[in-house]
Amino acid sequence: MGYTAVIGQSGGPTVVINQSLVGAVEALAASGKFSTILGAKNAVRGIVDGNFVDLTNLESGRLKRLAATPSSALGSSRDKPDAAYCERILASFKQRDVRYFFYIGGNDSSDTCRIVKQMADQSGYELNAWHIPKTIDNDLMENDHTPGYASAAKFVAQAFMGDNLDNKALAGIKINIVMGRHAGFLTAAAAAGRKLDSDGPHLVYVPELAFDVDTFLGDIDRVMKQHKRCVIAVSEGIHDAAGTPIISKLAQSVEKDAHGNVQLSGSGALGDHLAELVKTKLGAKRVRADTLGYLQRCFPGVVSDVDAREANLVARRAVEESLKGRASGSVAIQRTSTKPYTAELKVIPLEAVAAKTRTMPREHLAGASNVSPAFIEWVTPLLGGLPEIEQL
Amino acid sequence: MGYTAVIGQSGGPTVVINQSLVGAVEALAASGKFSTILGAKNAVRGIVDGNFVDLTNLESGRLKRLAATPSSALGSSRDKPDAAYCERILASFKQRDVRYFFYIGGNDSSDTCRIVKQMADQSGYELNAWHIPKTIDNDLMENDHTPGYASAAKFVAQAFMGDNLDNKALAGIKINIVMGRHAGFLTAAAAAGRKLDSDGPHLVYVPELAFDVDTFLGDIDRVMKQHKRCVIAVSEGIHDAAGTPIISKLAQSVEKDAHGNVQLSGSGALGDHLAELVKTKLGAKRVRADTLGYLQRCFPGVVSDVDAREANLVARRAVEESLKGRASGSVAIQRTSTKPYTAELKVIPLEAVAAKTRTMPREHLAGASNVSPAFIEWVTPLLGGLPEIEQL
Repeated sequence: MGYTAVIGQSGGPTVVINQSLVGAVEALAASGKFSTILGAKNAVRGIVDGNFVDLTNLESGRLKRLAATPSSALGSSRDKPDAAYCERILASFKQRDVRYFFYIGGNDSSDTCRIVKQMADQSGYELNAWHIPKTIDNDLMENDHTPGYASAAKFVAQAFMGDNLDNKALAGIKINIVMGRHAGFLTAAAAAGRKLDSDGPHLVYVPELAFDVDTFLGDIDRVMKQHKRCVIAVSEGIHDAAGTPIISKLAQSVEKDAHGNVQLSGSGALGDHLAELVKTKLGAKRVRADTLGYLQRCFPGVVSDVDAREANLVARRAVEESLKGRASGSVAIQRTSTKPYTAELKVIPLEAVAAKTRTMPREHLAGASNVSPAFIEWVTPLLGGLPEIEQL
Repeated sequence: MGYTAVIGQSGGPTVVINQSLVGAVEALAASGKFSTILGAKNAVRGIVDGNFVDLTNLESGRLKRLAATPSSALGSSRDKPDAAYCERILASFKQRDVRYFFYIGGNDSSDTCRIVKQMADQSGYELNAWHIPKTIDNDLMENDHTPGYASAAKFVAQAFMGDNLDNKALAGIKINIVMGRHAGFLTAAAAAGRKLDSDGPHLVYVPELAFDVDTFLGDIDRVMKQHKRCVIAVSEGIHDAAGTPIISKLAQSVEKDAHGNVQLSGSGALGDHLAELVKTKLGAKRVRADTLGYLQRCFPGVVSDVDAREANLVARRAVEESLKGRASGSVAIQRTSTKPYTAELKVIPLEAVAAKTRTMPREHLAGASNVSPAFIEWVTPLLGGLPEIEQL
């Protein structure tokens, strides 16, 4: 009889989150130490409900195809477990004699690992609890970048490459809303495909800096005078100097989630309100807004090969470390060189990443409405190449 | 001295419209009969303003990269020329001794060709005027499908494949708005990537059928009972039985263009209003809406190889026919077999396509909220393959 391991996938899905799932499954199977590998259906929800899928004997062809399939194959959850919920997770593990737990997710998932591991320690239950990083927001501490980010960034970069050419063909003011509540890394990637000085996005607004409506209108006016067109990347998370989300100020009503956060994704409201503002205040004619929406995180076929490889490797590394006897931790991607791009995986304590948020470093920004050459240099090797563009 | 040819690109851009531009340029150059090949900047606008770009001596590597670049390299226009405008087009041609005119666009562009050719004939000016088809809407008469449609359909199909998996991981009601004012072909393509009976889109609404809000809510209620989640494809052009666009009925104010059409694209309003309706009337919790927007027509890297090839071929054929002495026409793609897929190009008179609109044949629809197996069979070979998906 071998050990029983549980793997879960939490939070918003990505196109490479199944690479991490498959990496973990393959490493566990290869060790020969596990008789049962369980996938928790819908993350922590499946653990407390006893809802698992047996991953022990999936054949390799199926695993390979699964790894290349977007979104969380096990299902996901937005539940953010409190202490009582974590007690139920631990009880479920004890009931099944689960000694290895691997949780693929963001900073909340890392915090869940931390709490469950602490409770296990306190009750004298031997448990290995590992966090495997995942988030398109790229907002985990200690990581140069996180699995899921590079592919989403590639999607955003390509979307803006196309939309810049579209806007060049039929001129106007175009506002595109990009995901990211607190961190602007994904919105900044909009600029990665620019070739000519006249290419958009001409303006980039990230949540790291306070958003001022008058400055925004002045910026557009300036770009319109120069280029007679304007493509704008706006993070869904922009807020004013007091921290109030712009969407709350513009919209009559906003939906809030269980954590009291206003709903940002799954609605075109922010873009539409900004477009209306530009039409009204600047008297501009052709003003359009698109919200890139959920396509950013789960679009099949737009995958960075760097991202796919790293998502697999961080999961393998977590399994390997746990088998070497380290009882808990998270695996961080740390860059060692940009040209050529190299990175190493570093094991860090759960506390280093749990419930913390990383935002863009100051040197990635250029003024209040653009990214710096340093950001472009940083992001480019992560994208695994962009389509070639030729302009007359 | 050889002839002078003018090429223009009109209306909404596509990812393969430059394939048609390059196909025409290469065929004209290969004939050895042209000393000057001019591209009209921003379509008819450039012709009347005398704003051209010289395409005569572009080197082949640049042409090849240009062909693979999305959006209209010459720039485009939404101008719909009346008789006076067409007189100015003809005057510009006479001034430059232009005897060959190739216009890449939809049914309006075909009509412009028709009017200018008629005026040339009436004034005894020898002019060859050819329409080269292009539209993601696939609404041109006599065509099985039009260049630009297949790649946009591939984007929409992949977007829904990813979004279905996203919705499966985090269940809820998801509404996605797809382009198409009168024809539902593009919205219907949302269903092309479904594998399992439980895969979304579970509901598909096209403008060929009247949209009824109560039926819509009842449909969602039924799907939610069966699958506990619901992914919905909605054409931006849906209207009620009286022909009134649903967006006009739901929104407080809508923008209208020069032709009196309400603005459909470049806003999330329709999706947001439908989501609000579902939340209010069905008491549903997690209801989200995305509007696929301009990404559908210009996303670099998501290109059907069938589409790219055909976009090039229709343009070559138009040039060849004109050189054989046929003074005007349009080139239509007509399918000769579905398994394996084969098609032939047919020359048709401008009148057959000008200012007319094709919509989905009845056999492509199944009931009021789904597409038929016949549609899936029809659309599949056009997409050039979809990413492989594996589910647990």
